[in-house]
Amino acid sequence: MKHITSVDGSSWTDPDCPVARTLDIVGDRWSLLIVRDAMDGARSFTDFQHRTGVARNILTERLRRLVDRGILRREAAPSGRRQLYVLTDAGRDLFTVIVAMRQWGEGHAFADDETHSVLLDASGLPLARLQPTDSHGVAVDVDSTTVVRADRSDHATP
Amino acid sequence: MKHITSVDGSSWTDPDCPVARTLDIVGDRWSLLIVRDAMDGARSFTDFQHRTGVARNILTERLRRLVDRGILRREAAPSGRRQLYVLTDAGRDLFTVIVAMRQWGEGHAFADDETHSVLLDASGLPLARLQPTDSHGVAVDVDSTTVVRADRSDHATP
Repeated sequence: MKHITSVDGSSWTDPDCPVARTLDIVGDRWSLLIVRDAMDGARSFTDFQHRTGVARNILTERLRRLVDRGILRREAAPSGRRQLYVLTDAGRDLFTVIVAMRQWGEGHAFADDETHSVLLDASGLPLARLQPTDSHGVAVDVDSTTVVRADRSDHATP
Repeated sequence: MKHITSVDGSSWTDPDCPVARTLDIVGDRWSLLIVRDAMDGARSFTDFQHRTGVARNILTERLRRLVDRGILRREAAPSGRRQLYVLTDAGRDLFTVIVAMRQWGEGHAFADDETHSVLLDASGLPLARLQPTDSHGVAVDVDSTTVVRADRSDHATP
């Protein structure tokens, strides 16, 4: 697998932490909305612009960055005249992150009388709720888990 | 359940979309790193400052915002002299989002020879990989799911 091991030549906010690296790569509102729209079928600059409503200069910059970071790749449209932006495997793998955000938003960011978009499976039914579990399938939460820092003592680089 | 139905009096980027609302609420690198650290036991301003390394003025602003948005709440420390920041239920529910980001980062943002922190269950084992599934427990992905927009025609407000 190709790994993303640096961002724009600048250093990671917190090099040992996979959460922090993910945020360095896509932790920006527009970047994740672009990923959301790519998952929902947006391919061209115009698609992304219509769906996000973001300013063209910001969209241009974010698309370039997502390509540089290996989340999207450029493809020529069948007509050959336009460029399309397609999710890479790493980009497709953000599906779980987007689903987790969607489910949190459904639960916490809408009043009872507000409608929202829904993500449906092939039968037209909502997905099951994502639930972190241990390796035996038992539900875990903040209280039953612990972060263990990386041991960097064997690293020559500072 | 108490819902977060507006952000700082400004309008939502994309009012119908739970992903977009979640990003409006916590879609910022520092906010999500603060949530990560709160899940890992950070409680005081100093804890958050040491762990994130963020500038004090930015940290002050982000903590205030996370309190306003119902992700953290302020509590007096037992000594009564310091203020602590504790995750609300909505904040604790972001655990799934953080785990999804962590697992993506583990898979895509580290080279094979790089070490990273790990999230372990009570037995010291890594969590199972989060996998979006349909209501029968069958794995789903980008290709087998569809976003259906909210029907806002029954809404009186524009």
